Amino acid sequence: MRTSSRGEVDPFIVMDVAERARIAEAAGRRIVHMEIGQPGTAAPAAARAAVARALDAETLGYTVALGLPALRARIARLYGEWYGIDLDPGRVVVTAGSSAGFQLAFLSLFDAGQRVGIGDPGYPSYRNILKALSLQPVRIETGADTRYQVAPAHLHGLGLDGLLVASPANPTGTVLDRPHLAALMAACAEAGTAFVSDEIYHGLTYGGRATTALEVGDDVYVINSFSKFFSMTGWRVGWMVVPADHVRRVERLAQNLFICAPHVAQVAALAALDAQDEMRANVATYARNRALLLDALPRAGFARIAPPDGAFYLYADVAHLTDDSRALAAELLERAGVAVTPGLDFDPVRGHRWLRFSYAGAHAEMIEGAERLKAWYQARGAS
Amino acid sequence: MRTSSRGEVDPFIVMDVAERARIAEAAGRRIVHMEIGQPGTAAPAAARAAVARALDAETLGYTVALGLPALRARIARLYGEWYGIDLDPGRVVVTAGSSAGFQLAFLSLFDAGQRVGIGDPGYPSYRNILKALSLQPVRIETGADTRYQVAPAHLHGLGLDGLLVASPANPTGTVLDRPHLAALMAACAEAGTAFVSDEIYHGLTYGGRATTALEVGDDVYVINSFSKFFSMTGWRVGWMVVPADHVRRVERLAQNLFICAPHVAQVAALAALDAQDEMRANVATYARNRALLLDALPRAGFARIAPPDGAFYLYADVAHLTDDSRALAAELLERAGVAVTPGLDFDPVRGHRWLRFSYAGAHAEMIEGAERLKAWYQARGAS
Repeated sequence: MRTSSRGEVDPFIVMDVAERARIAEAAGRRIVHMEIGQPGTAAPAAARAAVARALDAETLGYTVALGLPALRARIARLYGEWYGIDLDPGRVVVTAGSSAGFQLAFLSLFDAGQRVGIGDPGYPSYRNILKALSLQPVRIETGADTRYQVAPAHLHGLGLDGLLVASPANPTGTVLDRPHLAALMAACAEAGTAFVSDEIYHGLTYGGRATTALEVGDDVYVINSFSKFFSMTGWRVGWMVVPADHVRRVERLAQNLFICAPHVAQVAALAALDAQDEMRANVATYARNRALLLDALPRAGFARIAPPDGAFYLYADVAHLTDDSRALAAELLERAGVAVTPGLDFDPVRGHRWLRFSYAGAHAEMIEGAERLKAWYQARGAS
Repeated sequence: MRTSSRGEVDPFIVMDVAERARIAEAAGRRIVHMEIGQPGTAAPAAARAAVARALDAETLGYTVALGLPALRARIARLYGEWYGIDLDPGRVVVTAGSSAGFQLAFLSLFDAGQRVGIGDPGYPSYRNILKALSLQPVRIETGADTRYQVAPAHLHGLGLDGLLVASPANPTGTVLDRPHLAALMAACAEAGTAFVSDEIYHGLTYGGRATTALEVGDDVYVINSFSKFFSMTGWRVGWMVVPADHVRRVERLAQNLFICAPHVAQVAALAALDAQDEMRANVATYARNRALLLDALPRAGFARIAPPDGAFYLYADVAHLTDDSRALAAELLERAGVAVTPGLDFDPVRGHRWLRFSYAGAHAEMIEGAERLKAWYQARGAS
């Protein structure tokens, strides 16, 4: 049977690591998981309790495409709580995770063949979703000079129809502060480049809160999710904030492409928004994990780390150890029993000399992982 | 901010009807709902019980992109139970509803600009998803001579890259029997046209079971869902069966575009597959509703109905009453307090003289609706 060329997208290399780890565990080995980009915790207790109640009390059929009105209103209030912004609930679109948000944003904004800039390193699905939707992902190589974030100077001559940025970013964790975000949005506005801001790791910062693009202006698509701060990855529920005059077109796309986000997940999300204390306890764990690894990793040979502002990742330059990060990840799994992600998922060109460490797991796991990595490094030096 | 042209898709007209019905209800009127394409029942009790257990016992994070292995295996077994087919679980892809299935199928099979045939009348999202993904929906007008289904003779000269059929269909409920399905698949195979079979209404037939395209051949994408027979619309979980050599490409697309179907919905779906007796009781209700309306509608002026083989819809030709089905639907809501869907959602060209009646609601509702429609028709004749 025929196949498309745009459907030839890249696999996630991290899945190979996860599969090898699974095989090792099936064979009786204990593996420390530092490859996984999701919390080890469940949804907040209040969210699970709300679902348990709804199972008996509600039919849980389709919701309207934009999402439960109460959830849209509560998300709008979150912008008051977190950023001091007065946000019209009518601009909030509940989505089936940020994945659906990216699709809706790209389809609403861009026609086939148009050019959308993404920073490298970055979340691999950005380029793969763009390609699948017949758009041209334009790689923008970033470096330590801009904290691995896109800057206005990068944009000259690229002729971009759109730019997608993430802050805090995956895999680096680096943050765009307000002046740099404002400069970038101004440069895009001047060039007629649509601006999409992935804010899925907001709430997960370790030195002051992150800035939302909505503090800078309204002419932006903001994408967020309940997956990370609210610890609800598998529930597939997130949201977008779009310009007021884009709501109706996004609604029509959402009706046709998704019908609605999962009803049960919307019920959970509404309750989760009032369970932020439980979530902040998770963040305190990430903060302890981060401090532990920032101390331990340099003593395990991983000293060159991108500025670890937020999210739950550390992105380490391993050029002094290897020019094949995939082989190094395999070695760490084999010798140290620690699963990590090779940088190739995030940067096809330079990722062969980077590794991503996730610290989203339990603190005891991170202690064990740190010990194993240090022991591996000492044995390596001795060999 | 810029917008795309492909994002300019049609709204669902049924949503306008639903909104008007909501306003009427808010003003104190009682409305009988025959516009809605979903069961009035909740997910099976066993599915809800499984979810309640999982809330306490599991983290419910991401699943692998193809879905929980136990669910894929159980879906494969369903093909044995329903059709006597031995299906490899490796060919089953769990999706976030049939909506995600259509996106994955279209992206895996077709590049931008390619031509995909769809029968009119048909589910409106077919053409809108195709347009959003930069594909060309090719309308194929069907009539009573082919039971409102596409036939090989329709395909000549269309130069189709793909064909999508639905059996039982929405809005007509008509079924493609095995000889006609086989003839259509053979014609597509000969022309190099990819064949996609929407089987979301399987299980909902009233004169013998429907034939799956997998009984005819393996070179097909079959799309199905837990929404209709299993009464789980809002859970957003469905499945596809694809050719064995397409699984890997669909997996990569699903990883990037959806990550996974909602975990909690997969837990519910697995239990639902063992709760088919409860579902068959729902089907018995639909059968009673159908018999009632097939008796009552002709006495309310709606005598010309497409062959009502399956699903939970009756599609009525109302050309003798109006050339504006939207106005007639508004009149039925206003005068009779019955919400129905104008055919324009399903057939942009001829839908101005058709209405869709859904009988997915409770039997008492259908009795009330039938009485109201008959009273409306008598009053209309008298005026």
